Amino acid sequence: MAIDYKLYYWDLPFRGNFIRLLLEDCGASYKMHDASEIYPDRSLKISNPGMAPPYLYDCHSKTYYAQMPAILMHLGKKFDYLPKRAETLTLALKTILDCNDVLMEITNYNGSTMWEKSAWEAFRYSRLADWMTIFEKTGRDHGLKGDKGFLLGTRLSVADIATAALFGTMIYSFPALESDLQQHASNIARLCRRVEARPAIRRFLEIQREENGRGYCGGQIERSLRQMIG
Amino acid sequence: MAIDYKLYYWDLPFRGNFIRLLLEDCGASYKMHDASEIYPDRSLKISNPGMAPPYLYDCHSKTYYAQMPAILMHLGKKFDYLPKRAETLTLALKTILDCNDVLMEITNYNGSTMWEKSAWEAFRYSRLADWMTIFEKTGRDHGLKGDKGFLLGTRLSVADIATAALFGTMIYSFPALESDLQQHASNIARLCRRVEARPAIRRFLEIQREENGRGYCGGQIERSLRQMIG
Repeated sequence: MAIDYKLYYWDLPFRGNFIRLLLEDCGASYKMHDASEIYPDRSLKISNPGMAPPYLYDCHSKTYYAQMPAILMHLGKKFDYLPKRAETLTLALKTILDCNDVLMEITNYNGSTMWEKSAWEAFRYSRLADWMTIFEKTGRDHGLKGDKGFLLGTRLSVADIATAALFGTMIYSFPALESDLQQHASNIARLCRRVEARPAIRRFLEIQREENGRGYCGGQIERSLRQMIG
Repeated sequence: MAIDYKLYYWDLPFRGNFIRLLLEDCGASYKMHDASEIYPDRSLKISNPGMAPPYLYDCHSKTYYAQMPAILMHLGKKFDYLPKRAETLTLALKTILDCNDVLMEITNYNGSTMWEKSAWEAFRYSRLADWMTIFEKTGRDHGLKGDKGFLLGTRLSVADIATAALFGTMIYSFPALESDLQQHASNIARLCRRVEARPAIRRFLEIQREENGRGYCGGQIERSLRQMIG
């Protein structure tokens, strides 16, 4: 049977799970390909070239897309995971961009330098806490409370998928950070559990976590993070 | 007369001009406010809080938006600067995200460390050249050639505004980089000149450049860039 998408990424949740959780939830068919099939040698040669994975290939339109937030908004539109109002549509994208910034910051700018204790603690107890607060307040501003509502209103959207891909993955990979999330963003912690409990996502995560354990972003920077968090 | 938007940013083109070029081109009324009116003290307190400037405030819907790419897509939708097809709509967002990555990279991750000669040259002659190539090839893939066409097809879109805000600003602020752009992305260099020649944008840039000279991102990191580029 023909598949809908090919996703080029590594066997790690980091940026990949943002896209995979949505593909799983909406039931699109896709096949994982190792990022090395494109990156780095073919990155500039494909049509609509992009600097780095993930790359999504749409098998029907034969189009490559780079940039996780663009891929997620694309799939969100196609599979009806976008908020309808102009305000919340924009905030959905803003939320994904916030997620992308957190990924970059927690890896100390994509692993450009390794973490040192004082810088890590300044990040964890100030900046990361502020990020958690931003998500929590955004949810509250739109009616998220306990098991009621979603990040941007009464309907699940791509912003909830992204929030779970960010914080659900983070606290599964680094259980010590669960208490940080609980402290600064208790409704977000609960939202992540609700998204992760959706049947297709739960099945996917069970298999992924059995195969990959608590792997996060890989490389030296994951080792550095594990040294910090202990 | 009531204005449409307030834009909270510094008197620097860096991330602000992405939004200002569009506001100018479409003739929306807006007022600049210094970023310090929100950032950092009120960043987490406004509705839909955001980590850092720019913030756009919509005076009609009384809504704050953070994250430059989200703001630009929001205005693009409102003022009809978005491509119509799903493919090119996604690529418009992807292009803005690429721009945002280049801004982060040219400032050595938002100024987290100052440039040193060898790292700068590795960036300038490899990574920055690759970014320029990505834009050039994207344009070619969609019919941009000489004075014909735009980045994503036959119609000007938010992607062209973003491309000019990135590379037009960069080579105005650092004239030595103009030959890099000409070498790796000659059609993009020409596209930037065409966008900058649009009447409202030209008038805006004349005033901004008279007032602010070749200022780029400000701070120590701009001084570091000027030391590198000489």
